[in-house]
Amino acid sequence: MSAIVISIGDELVSGLTINTNAAWLSQQLATCGIRTLEHLTVGDDASAISMIIGSAVTRCNTLIISGGLGPTEDDLTRTALAAALDEPLVEDAAALADIEAFFRKLQRPMSPSNRLQALRPASARCLANTCGTAPGMALSRGNTAIFVLPGVPREMKAMFSQGVLPELSAGQTEIVARTMQLNTAGLGESVLGERIADFMRRGAKPRVGTAVHDGLVSIRVYAEGHLAEVEASLERTSLDISQRLGALVFSRGDVPLEQACAEALRLAGQTVTTAESCTGGMVAARLTNISGSSSWFKQGWVTYSNTSKVQELGVDEAIIATHGAVSDETARAMALGARHQAATDWAVAITGIAGPDGGTAEKPVGLVYIAIAGAAGAQVYRYNFVGGRTDVRLRATVSALNLLRLHVAGVDVRSVLG
Amino acid sequence: MSAIVISIGDELVSGLTINTNAAWLSQQLATCGIRTLEHLTVGDDASAISMIIGSAVTRCNTLIISGGLGPTEDDLTRTALAAALDEPLVEDAAALADIEAFFRKLQRPMSPSNRLQALRPASARCLANTCGTAPGMALSRGNTAIFVLPGVPREMKAMFSQGVLPELSAGQTEIVARTMQLNTAGLGESVLGERIADFMRRGAKPRVGTAVHDGLVSIRVYAEGHLAEVEASLERTSLDISQRLGALVFSRGDVPLEQACAEALRLAGQTVTTAESCTGGMVAARLTNISGSSSWFKQGWVTYSNTSKVQELGVDEAIIATHGAVSDETARAMALGARHQAATDWAVAITGIAGPDGGTAEKPVGLVYIAIAGAAGAQVYRYNFVGGRTDVRLRATVSALNLLRLHVAGVDVRSVLG
Repeated sequence: MSAIVISIGDELVSGLTINTNAAWLSQQLATCGIRTLEHLTVGDDASAISMIIGSAVTRCNTLIISGGLGPTEDDLTRTALAAALDEPLVEDAAALADIEAFFRKLQRPMSPSNRLQALRPASARCLANTCGTAPGMALSRGNTAIFVLPGVPREMKAMFSQGVLPELSAGQTEIVARTMQLNTAGLGESVLGERIADFMRRGAKPRVGTAVHDGLVSIRVYAEGHLAEVEASLERTSLDISQRLGALVFSRGDVPLEQACAEALRLAGQTVTTAESCTGGMVAARLTNISGSSSWFKQGWVTYSNTSKVQELGVDEAIIATHGAVSDETARAMALGARHQAATDWAVAITGIAGPDGGTAEKPVGLVYIAIAGAAGAQVYRYNFVGGRTDVRLRATVSALNLLRLHVAGVDVRSVLG
Repeated sequence: MSAIVISIGDELVSGLTINTNAAWLSQQLATCGIRTLEHLTVGDDASAISMIIGSAVTRCNTLIISGGLGPTEDDLTRTALAAALDEPLVEDAAALADIEAFFRKLQRPMSPSNRLQALRPASARCLANTCGTAPGMALSRGNTAIFVLPGVPREMKAMFSQGVLPELSAGQTEIVARTMQLNTAGLGESVLGERIADFMRRGAKPRVGTAVHDGLVSIRVYAEGHLAEVEASLERTSLDISQRLGALVFSRGDVPLEQACAEALRLAGQTVTTAESCTGGMVAARLTNISGSSSWFKQGWVTYSNTSKVQELGVDEAIIATHGAVSDETARAMALGARHQAATDWAVAITGIAGPDGGTAEKPVGLVYIAIAGAAGAQVYRYNFVGGRTDVRLRATVSALNLLRLHVAGVDVRSVLG
């Protein structure tokens, strides 16, 4: 079962409004085993709408159209749909009665333009709108079921959930589609892809793909079929991939990296402190995103200047004078000093050059040292991040959280990250 | 001049990821008078991509394609594009050299799959990627200019801004569309809307609308026409609105609130420190987003526990014992203590209940005190934010930055915010 989702509206093609309807509809369709092939977005232009509908009908068996059902001059979906399917528009008496009742309830007069909203192609039936004036429509052409919904998200979702989904679920075979997501940190997408190349080969079932966002690489496992088989297949493949990748995987689904840190600390009954220079508080901010973090995080420092590194963390001035603020030695001293000051089990320290200024030939922009201090002393890791100020700070933050997680979990970092 | 924007990726058509690239690209295209006709989104399927490209090329004169340029098996854009245009793929020596240099800088080995990213259709040239490995491509077919960009938003935007926009701007006609944006903080959208209701009535030219995001309200002014008239119209209306709203407006365009803080501090030649409890470092992180912040920001604290407020900031234990950690008195003591410790002109202190736990009848979730300390002493502001943990922390951060900005600029806060 395949679908195409058409979204209509000038505000969408001009980019003024982000299209969230199409993504929501695709997720809903997937729950009844209907796979979306395309999202097509077009402006308030009757012939363009007509053309895109006429073409899409031939390429899928479920066509969902949203937008352009309002009462204004820009609302052309009814007209364009009728033209595409070569049918006349007729007035639906029940739909007209619904619209009249809506305005009676609002105690507002109905305007003539609202009457246009009761028109539909001759072979269609109307779908009730419980949140607004525009009725939707349902019809079919050949093997394709067509559903037309309002563009206003709240109205669209209500109508889809009440008037479309039940029909699609009933018509489905027991076929569903599900996705499972594994989140990894520490390796780039291409190297990770090579490690699970056999899972990712074209035609493999379940289908496995990778995506990059915010300095992390997620692995998505997708399967279609009968529910029980799909769930078993996803679980099996996710476990196999997790076993292959070991500690590179920090969570499943939408569990963020900082939550993996939180769980490692809670499990160990340990505390952590932070001493940040170039990341300016980003690591502490992410750790404290986690509800209940106050049981394992008590304080942190943003020691942006050399003086504050000395005064707040007890870093030896001579170290900074000799090696510089951005150095293995300074990172180490920051971590050890913070851990001592805060009397915690762990400390994370970061010092680096975020850019765009401050880089030199020996110490370029993107050079960052991250130190993790624990009972056994401090380990320092050196990175050369690529990108602008935001990229460097984000990647440093993510790397620091990941190193903390691995250390607290007792994993040998070098063997995992190389 | 018309455009079609194609976005490629399973994560998009399945609805897992919202398509923000297409909207951004359409807004960019509008600035050079290029009107977007359609957004087409398709999954990682070579023949579907090929078909959609082949069709789109005939319907517009500017075709922007993003996504599918990574090094994995799912990355099919290069292959599909070459098939659609019936050209062979060739390896671009300069692009390959760029990719090799990227990995050398990261001090990581390049994998064979990355080499595929240097392939391009024979008639194309590569566009440099300054943030990642995938080069983009530029070519033409008949009257249509085709640009192919990575799907990762940061990489796509950088490449478009540097490698595509200059070329498109050079070729534009006289009719352009422009948007000017005014950014405000401190008032809700509906109250703000009432203050500029006359500007926002239907049919007004230029068109004025408001949008809410990240705890701030932006005002967008939009006009279409000949460049000179459009610019004059936007400028005039923006000035009128700015005069009406006064200090509520902190910047134009994409200048963030923290930059307004930075400029106020630079202008005054003053420094600031931060002492954060519930915001956990978010304020310091935003201030240090600004390049050059080291000249006015030297250090900050995240004093999450009561002990750390006492030990690091010198807050009197008795104050916390009597009034509680979340109180006017504690916020005041934190700000005064931090200002003294850091020897800065200003200090921002925040203490509150982010939730979901920790609230009581007298001190509910969302209660936050923000104190700004300066030469004349400390002012404390009390808020009751609505929403979850993330909302409360974000709104507290934004309010703190806004209060800092107003104080440093010498504005009477109560008269602006009520």
